[in-house]
Amino acid sequence: MTDASKRYQLRTAVAQDIPHILGLMREMAEFEKLTDIFKATEASLHNSFFGAQPAAHCLVGHTEDEPGLPVAYIMWFHNYSSFLDKRGLYLEDVYIQPAHRGNGLGKMVLKHLARLAIELDCGRFEWTVLDWNQNAIDFYKHHGAEILPEWRIVRVTGDAMRQLAE
Amino acid sequence: MTDASKRYQLRTAVAQDIPHILGLMREMAEFEKLTDIFKATEASLHNSFFGAQPAAHCLVGHTEDEPGLPVAYIMWFHNYSSFLDKRGLYLEDVYIQPAHRGNGLGKMVLKHLARLAIELDCGRFEWTVLDWNQNAIDFYKHHGAEILPEWRIVRVTGDAMRQLAE
Repeated sequence: MTDASKRYQLRTAVAQDIPHILGLMREMAEFEKLTDIFKATEASLHNSFFGAQPAAHCLVGHTEDEPGLPVAYIMWFHNYSSFLDKRGLYLEDVYIQPAHRGNGLGKMVLKHLARLAIELDCGRFEWTVLDWNQNAIDFYKHHGAEILPEWRIVRVTGDAMRQLAE
Repeated sequence: MTDASKRYQLRTAVAQDIPHILGLMREMAEFEKLTDIFKATEASLHNSFFGAQPAAHCLVGHTEDEPGLPVAYIMWFHNYSSFLDKRGLYLEDVYIQPAHRGNGLGKMVLKHLARLAIELDCGRFEWTVLDWNQNAIDFYKHHGAEILPEWRIVRVTGDAMRQLAE
């Protein structure tokens, strides 16, 4: 492969990437039909990634010939397993623009994060998938992941959270 | 209710609680049939709760008349929602000894953590449940939680994580 527009690199996000990241996040929210809960702004992202107590780590993927134009973003944070008594690496989001799929960037992201998890002495590398997204499930299984069939996420938010707190 | 052995309090765990917490964790691992992955030790827990970069926060529940003898433990950490662009409060573990169930301690834990989530400006309070644990699911729903039916946890660990990283 000699076309630099199809060769990719990953790097830590910097402040100048934030408008691009926000645009990619909006594309993903539209795909997932979650625009109703979308609240991120440039200022809030800046605080989450570069504030005094960062809430998440952000990487971007770009083509070799346009390093300033992210075509993918990745966010992760540390979770924790009590029984292993170790941190884990939790992948919150990975989004690759449709025009850049099928060229190995997704695999590059998974391998990069697995290496990072090992470097950071994490016991696990985890994320979630929608149970109807069979393409994604097949891709993850092909790369050594297991899908936990029995666990369900439980969530309290908004008014229900305020009522519970009363 | 006037019996102090059935009235409970929650407090932040201290170093002296660790042997009790480890004992409660082992009880829970046996209940969940997860003793094969159980790696926690007193030293590792001390580092996770009280080290330079704590991996998790730990609370204990005790009866009013025996404050030094935890009958329940709770561990939580911050997760993060990219679309809300806010931290969340993620409940990793809650375990209550069988003899102390049905007396309101579980409800006290959920209310305490919902209050903490609001104080810490978290967008969500989340945890997981096994899909066959109907008693727990009913209890959580009764307190305002929703069970997300479609999301599955994806995990890479051990040899598979090392292979992916290569």
